[in-house]
Amino acid sequence: MDGRGNAPVTLEEVARRAGVSPSTVSRILNGTARVRDSKRQAVERAIADLNYRPNVMAQGLARGSSMSVGVITQDIASPFFNEALKGIEDSLAKAGYAPLFVSGHWKKEKEVECMSLLVARRVDGVIVLTGMIDDASLMEYAARLPLVITGRNLHGPNVVSIQANNEQAGYEATCHLIELGHTRIAHIAGPEANVDAQQRLEGYRRALREHGLPVDERLIATGDFHESSGLLAVNQLLETRLNFTALFVANDQMAYGARLALYRKGIRVPEDMSIIGFDDLPSSLYTTPPLTTVRQPAYDLGKIAGDAMLGLIHGQDYAIPTIPLQVIVRESTMRRRGP
Amino acid sequence: MDGRGNAPVTLEEVARRAGVSPSTVSRILNGTARVRDSKRQAVERAIADLNYRPNVMAQGLARGSSMSVGVITQDIASPFFNEALKGIEDSLAKAGYAPLFVSGHWKKEKEVECMSLLVARRVDGVIVLTGMIDDASLMEYAARLPLVITGRNLHGPNVVSIQANNEQAGYEATCHLIELGHTRIAHIAGPEANVDAQQRLEGYRRALREHGLPVDERLIATGDFHESSGLLAVNQLLETRLNFTALFVANDQMAYGARLALYRKGIRVPEDMSIIGFDDLPSSLYTTPPLTTVRQPAYDLGKIAGDAMLGLIHGQDYAIPTIPLQVIVRESTMRRRGP
Repeated sequence: MDGRGNAPVTLEEVARRAGVSPSTVSRILNGTARVRDSKRQAVERAIADLNYRPNVMAQGLARGSSMSVGVITQDIASPFFNEALKGIEDSLAKAGYAPLFVSGHWKKEKEVECMSLLVARRVDGVIVLTGMIDDASLMEYAARLPLVITGRNLHGPNVVSIQANNEQAGYEATCHLIELGHTRIAHIAGPEANVDAQQRLEGYRRALREHGLPVDERLIATGDFHESSGLLAVNQLLETRLNFTALFVANDQMAYGARLALYRKGIRVPEDMSIIGFDDLPSSLYTTPPLTTVRQPAYDLGKIAGDAMLGLIHGQDYAIPTIPLQVIVRESTMRRRGP
Repeated sequence: MDGRGNAPVTLEEVARRAGVSPSTVSRILNGTARVRDSKRQAVERAIADLNYRPNVMAQGLARGSSMSVGVITQDIASPFFNEALKGIEDSLAKAGYAPLFVSGHWKKEKEVECMSLLVARRVDGVIVLTGMIDDASLMEYAARLPLVITGRNLHGPNVVSIQANNEQAGYEATCHLIELGHTRIAHIAGPEANVDAQQRLEGYRRALREHGLPVDERLIATGDFHESSGLLAVNQLLETRLNFTALFVANDQMAYGARLALYRKGIRVPEDMSIIGFDDLPSSLYTTPPLTTVRQPAYDLGKIAGDAMLGLIHGQDYAIPTIPLQVIVRESTMRRRGP
């Protein structure tokens, strides 16, 4: 504290103390310009010495901005989305923006409500992480504010869509099992309304076809991306009494449930059954055995979404980097045994 | 859409359509008064028909409020905190407030920075989830805005602190193992700077003492609440070559790491080693075997924190309910075998 009581320190005082112009201070605070390191340090020291607190919101409102970006996620407690949120947070922080998180709980109407709330709060843009809202509504919102959306293919002047190649990743996950000698491979798919899930399923089908293996529809079960549905799906697959030695599960959370169902039946992983998941959640390193999976770089995805949003807000071109999806081989898959 | 183009619908038009006074509409929007159900429904219908969007931020600013509450968490990607954040979000939403999440990354300086950011954004209050910031600084902030803090015991006119009884819970977790016949019980503690962790450790010591069992300091290892530190701690405990048959781990994430370390050494859970964790994360239902643990009602904790904040903001008394911690017995603990 600087002993001045409550009288706020002004930007001009910071500039005077640092020996630079007020506009330099302002540019440093907004992160809008490159400034020599020595100047930057002088300003940062002056800010610390004077305990200066920029009124970010007032600054923003003065130029019609709330310095915040709305982020619609499906479930604020989901580990995958939370890695992505962390990436968004880190990206926006660089430019002084803060994220406002709201969750759509996988319901379209709830997402529309969230969108209205964010518009009412005058956010500078909205990032939608794999939402359920329809394309036409999204384009309508894009007419009013910058929009970044993942897991969807939308084009427009005020929209950036970020997509990983889920079909290719589903293909590679299945190929990993085929290369280990598995020929009877079951799949636990995600929700039918989810584009990512459908693409992973298509990749699974293509891998089987290209290797001359039959696609047996009875070996495809559907879950809702939560653990419990993976458990139920395995029980359902086992009840068919069909023979299978490997399992490609459309996300890690369902793979955890699948693993537990096998444990309950005394089916060993990987000796009796190989499992590959999808997402590479942090806890997948610590399942027993550690889970072979496809890495979705959730943090990077969030960072890219944040950077794309800043590009839209500042009217700067931003080339979206390719989002790499990669099979991470751990200990839940192994070469098929026996005949 | 109502076909009126972009001209915004006013609150007065909503009132006219619903056949109520504008102040009634306003009270419903702010959630500040009880209104008859029929009136509320009429207003909600009018809002939907006219596609009315209250400009929450403008409303808030007019009465000196940003209609947002800052939430400082340690790690926005941690499953425990995210359950709590969901509770906060749900609580605040009732009264039209939105949370602004920022993370302190377990560093005191970073938390002070977060606090400044939130103050600059004119939040109506700040909720600190088990922070590292010192008590004196917190009391200084409380002089300026309402503060709710978990895992700490602070008193003041503008502060509510919410605490679960971690000592008692640590005691009960250890008693659960003692009741199963275990006498050599190791503990993996959380960080020394963390109050919750220290209380759980104290509960562990008390349980041993009260049952006439020696406290062997070599059977106490320390981790940082992440999975990898649980794995390292088990390796360290095994290297002592001391005999122990049960393990109380101060949080579930470290318990996952501990479980994997045992799996690597071929030590079976629960046949050779019983493990009890702490938190009851959603994934603890799906570890193999499912983890016995102490349930921290993270969502409820968040909801209570949110409700307490609304109480402070609206100047209403709010009696903090007791936060129940409860041993949840699953399959990772069993009666001690052998001599």
